[in-house]
Amino acid sequence: GTGADNNLYINQAIVFIEDAIQYRSINHRVDSKSLWLYRWYYSRTCQWILSLTITIILALAFVEKPSSLTITSDVRYRLPAWNPPCGLTESIELLCFLVFMVDVSVKSYLIGWEEFWKNKWLMAYILTLIVSLTDWTVSLSFFCTENVRIRRILRPFFLLQNSSMMKKTLKSINSTLPEMASVVLLLAVHLSLFTMFAMLLFARTKDGQQDKEWVGYFRNLPDSLTSLLVLLTTANNPDVMLPAYSKNRAYSVFFILFTVLGNLFLMNLLTAIIYNQFRGYLLKSVQSSLFRRRLGIRAAFEVLSSLKETPANAQQSYVSIGALLQVLQKVEMDSRCKQAIMRSLKMCSCDQLSAAQFQKLFEELDKDAIKQHPPSPQYRSHFLQKMQFAFGHPYFGYLGNVVALANIVSICVVLVMDADKQPSERDDFFLGAINCFFILYYLLEMLLKILAMGLKRYLSYPSNRFDGLLTVILLILEIATFAVYGFPHPGWRPEFMGLLSLWDMVRLVNMLIVFRFLRIIPNMKFMALVVTTLLDLVKNLRAFAGILVVVFYAFAITGIMLFKGAVVPLGNTRKKCDFVALLGHFEAEVICCLLYLLFVNLICRWAKIYFVAWWLISSVIWVNLFIALLLENFIHKWDRRCHREPLSDIEYQRTVELMFRDVLEEPTEEELMEKLHQHPHLQLCR
Amino acid sequence: GTGADNNLYINQAIVFIEDAIQYRSINHRVDSKSLWLYRWYYSRTCQWILSLTITIILALAFVEKPSSLTITSDVRYRLPAWNPPCGLTESIELLCFLVFMVDVSVKSYLIGWEEFWKNKWLMAYILTLIVSLTDWTVSLSFFCTENVRIRRILRPFFLLQNSSMMKKTLKSINSTLPEMASVVLLLAVHLSLFTMFAMLLFARTKDGQQDKEWVGYFRNLPDSLTSLLVLLTTANNPDVMLPAYSKNRAYSVFFILFTVLGNLFLMNLLTAIIYNQFRGYLLKSVQSSLFRRRLGIRAAFEVLSSLKETPANAQQSYVSIGALLQVLQKVEMDSRCKQAIMRSLKMCSCDQLSAAQFQKLFEELDKDAIKQHPPSPQYRSHFLQKMQFAFGHPYFGYLGNVVALANIVSICVVLVMDADKQPSERDDFFLGAINCFFILYYLLEMLLKILAMGLKRYLSYPSNRFDGLLTVILLILEIATFAVYGFPHPGWRPEFMGLLSLWDMVRLVNMLIVFRFLRIIPNMKFMALVVTTLLDLVKNLRAFAGILVVVFYAFAITGIMLFKGAVVPLGNTRKKCDFVALLGHFEAEVICCLLYLLFVNLICRWAKIYFVAWWLISSVIWVNLFIALLLENFIHKWDRRCHREPLSDIEYQRTVELMFRDVLEEPTEEELMEKLHQHPHLQLCR
Repeated sequence: GTGADNNLYINQAIVFIEDAIQYRSINHRVDSKSLWLYRWYYSRTCQWILSLTITIILALAFVEKPSSLTITSDVRYRLPAWNPPCGLTESIELLCFLVFMVDVSVKSYLIGWEEFWKNKWLMAYILTLIVSLTDWTVSLSFFCTENVRIRRILRPFFLLQNSSMMKKTLKSINSTLPEMASVVLLLAVHLSLFTMFAMLLFARTKDGQQDKEWVGYFRNLPDSLTSLLVLLTTANNPDVMLPAYSKNRAYSVFFILFTVLGNLFLMNLLTAIIYNQFRGYLLKSVQSSLFRRRLGIRAAFEVLSSLKETPANAQQSYVSIGALLQVLQKVEMDSRCKQAIMRSLKMCSCDQLSAAQFQKLFEELDKDAIKQHPPSPQYRSHFLQKMQFAFGHPYFGYLGNVVALANIVSICVVLVMDADKQPSERDDFFLGAINCFFILYYLLEMLLKILAMGLKRYLSYPSNRFDGLLTVILLILEIATFAVYGFPHPGWRPEFMGLLSLWDMVRLVNMLIVFRFLRIIPNMKFMALVVTTLLDLVKNLRAFAGILVVVFYAFAITGIMLFKGAVVPLGNTRKKCDFVALLGHFEAEVICCLLYLLFVNLICRWAKIYFVAWWLISSVIWVNLFIALLLENFIHKWDRRCHREPLSDIEYQRTVELMFRDVLEEPTEEELMEKLHQHPHLQLCR
Repeated sequence: GTGADNNLYINQAIVFIEDAIQYRSINHRVDSKSLWLYRWYYSRTCQWILSLTITIILALAFVEKPSSLTITSDVRYRLPAWNPPCGLTESIELLCFLVFMVDVSVKSYLIGWEEFWKNKWLMAYILTLIVSLTDWTVSLSFFCTENVRIRRILRPFFLLQNSSMMKKTLKSINSTLPEMASVVLLLAVHLSLFTMFAMLLFARTKDGQQDKEWVGYFRNLPDSLTSLLVLLTTANNPDVMLPAYSKNRAYSVFFILFTVLGNLFLMNLLTAIIYNQFRGYLLKSVQSSLFRRRLGIRAAFEVLSSLKETPANAQQSYVSIGALLQVLQKVEMDSRCKQAIMRSLKMCSCDQLSAAQFQKLFEELDKDAIKQHPPSPQYRSHFLQKMQFAFGHPYFGYLGNVVALANIVSICVVLVMDADKQPSERDDFFLGAINCFFILYYLLEMLLKILAMGLKRYLSYPSNRFDGLLTVILLILEIATFAVYGFPHPGWRPEFMGLLSLWDMVRLVNMLIVFRFLRIIPNMKFMALVVTTLLDLVKNLRAFAGILVVVFYAFAITGIMLFKGAVVPLGNTRKKCDFVALLGHFEAEVICCLLYLLFVNLICRWAKIYFVAWWLISSVIWVNLFIALLLENFIHKWDRRCHREPLSDIEYQRTVELMFRDVLEEPTEEELMEKLHQHPHLQLCR
């Protein structure tokens, strides 16, 4: 019937608009039941359950058998880790697998049979589930005593396939691989040629006294390769050349040449290539997001224009405003956007919307979210108005910064004076009294600011929230200190009481004061720019971080399986740390932490390959991707800063889509219609 | 008289065109005598003498007193360095100063009195000379026994002021300083806040057993600052956190936070800022070079157009072709360019040139130098033609690469097999026989290629020159080996004879073979791109390298003066190398080398400040500048590669000016004329 048809069209339009908002593909089934299932699947509850399941299955590694999640990492002191009974983690795993099976069936059904065969991610998902379930069965049939558990390495895949942003990023990385491989090949050639040179140069001599370099670093091919590879990470930088250098200064030419070529040229070339390649692909992926959004809106327009209630125009199709309002009421979207669209709809004098008007209406979605701070209260009293002027003035904020700086300096002075004193000699009176005074000032500042700005306006600034929260915590800590240890007086050195010693309390207060000092950041223009760039970056980095977690998890689990039982006492920490140093810069710490966290220790000759792979993936490739993103982000921001001064009371919330808005191309009418006619489930009337 | 006037105009035109070619400013005196002096000053001989003088005065440091230029750096073995008598280096210095005084007087006279007062570089030059001469007098009156010699630190200034490219680069760096200072300030804030945190976190505890972290790294403020600063360079990466980490895993959060914020964010932000700022300034400096060139050409046109022989046109000025030919014959310029200009002049049918035509004629200067390879010889014999086809074919070159690879592999296999053998057990027969065979093949390949291409064409390819040179050297070495040690046979282990032992000869041959393998580079497309980028970079980097040398020299001389006499035995190498590790990545080696080269050793508590300054300038700023240049160069090259395939027989020689040609703006007629009318010495008729 026509009514049922109309209802279906309305529902289709709702789903298409929601697809557009979320940048989802519209290539799914569009009959009534499927639409209901689709909306249910993408409802907040369902997606939340799915995320929770993924988190649980990933978190299992922390309680499963070879983990060593204890406070201290020192094998001598730590207690044996808790060992869950066989079947506990396995049954949780089974529950997760069931959720994933539901997920994959719903997804496969929704995109339809034909599309299913083209979708490699779904196929891989099903394959992963089958392998995991098989492995799970094997595991249970051995009563959890078998060693190799393939399903653990496969776990991060569930995280990967659930995020379209991560899949997109992975695709970008994948397209950059050929160029990266070329540079890595170049690095390999560089390394092998220099290794041969080194072996010829530092060969064993006949007198046996002079070949320290040979004994230490170039004994055979694997040793030479390792020495030079570690030199490429600059971890053994001056050490490796010292024996040869002290024999003859000219040997240093070899090492300098190797480092300059490898480290300065080839490594930075990798940065350049990744930056150059990645820049294009990020733009491309944002462009395809834009296309999806425009396509969803256009699809909604098309289905709404085929509603029977509209008069059949010969040339152009139109959508009645009534139908659109009906759709808008049911669409789940940001309330700010919805209101803005409703407002423009009401202002529109016409009765029907053309495709262009319809598209223009939804451009509200692309706009920056503008945040307006609530106004200050209007006081009637003349005195209060003066107070408001004085304490609402920026200079009052600057005064607060100066006081915070003075506090920092006083803490620093006390720290320097107390540095070499015995704990028993320390007099906590001075610091206690000073902090007491400063915290009272902070409290006063907060109250005066609230008076001047009103509570709502005060809280609408993030810097004030940060400030106020820390002030309240400091106040509570100070009150607690006085309640337990009494007021400070000269020679104030009370014994340990309650939860924390006085010294710990004072330290905690000091740390919070140091932390509170960060409030100066928004006051310095350049610092503010840097910090907002960094915050933007963190937002845009989620997909990268996700991929890093995936790689990390896979590596850690592989590491557990490979090096299980290779527990050695801490005596040879040094040797282990040489290995760790191979991992490069900051990863050294992260992996140091996580390797310890997940398994105990590993010293193994052929672990080198594992570590080199890790170094290449995490340090070289990931760090370069990060630099590329940072360069991109910062340069865009810097350029924009010049030709647009930020308005005083308005904050913009920007995403990666908005960053590229100036260079994005709008899809043409023809492209959109061609894509719509290729839709596997939607038959358009015309 | 008119003839003298005409002669003057011709001479002015010659000098202006030479200024345009060399991108020099035209703001100098233009009377006959000054022009003669100007051409004499910028003649090749004069400039060569000046460069030699600068080289000599800089090289003096290697023979002057506190230097230690010996073969071994080990203080136990090395001989005392040669100590020149008082007055020897000083008299060489005086000669250099005399040359510089002539230089500065000629320069000052040529730019004229008014311009002299505006030119800060010249003022600084004179000041430097005065200070140096005063210091020199003091030095001689003390009979070379005084310790502080300020003039040594000032020496690199002479290098700096002589290169306009270096002055330009320094100006660019100078403009980037405010932004860099902001980031360095941010780094300092980051460092100091984290230092305070660390001192509060790792404070001395009451039981005294658990505070390994405090003892090792955070004993007092300077220690804490140093620990975290070194952590910023990742030199003490896992070590610094291990004591705290083994106490409680949660402490690692502090270190990870510090490294991620400092190393990953702030350091890379510095890269981004320098890249962003520097990109603009490089373009700007190239733009100003272009302006100088156009201005010189235009000035030549103006003076030629005021020659009396041309009829005075009312509206436009013209230059007669005869006058231009007269000028061109006397101008010193690249003969290729001169011929090209002459050719276009002959093809021009008209008798006079307008300003635009004149300018267009000299655009030849901006074009890529195109190198045409000479043709192959034409053989008459059918057999020789077939030979030529076969051995001139690229496949023959590929075969040569395959043979070179086989040779490398065979050397590698022998090296691996011989790695652990005693030198007396080694049998050199196998390697000798193999190398003999391969070298014969290389010789044959070279001869056949010369046959196919003709000697001229063969030598016109750089890869062939490289190949042929190495083949000839290898042949000579091999013949020498056989002459001294006879032909190889099983058990061929002759005793030491002549200059080198057989083993050394074989090693040398092998190294050359490994080196020869680099001939494969032009055959791999991506490698060729990378290598040409690197070569371009080296060309463009001369100015940077010069500035680095200046900074380096000043630091080294300061270091000598500060740490003279701080000689310590090699026992505490480790401690010294921790200091050196602070210097960061590749600089560690360069400075390790040069520090050793110039002075002996330094362990001094307050040397830290010196090293931190060095680290900031060389490692952080210079390396980032290098990355910026590399990114710029590579991205330009990469983009161009896509839309222009290189022609087979033509090679382009590109400079930094050509790299930016697409984005450069041509100066307008008005700008040029305005600048010309501001010329301090040239009075134009109109």
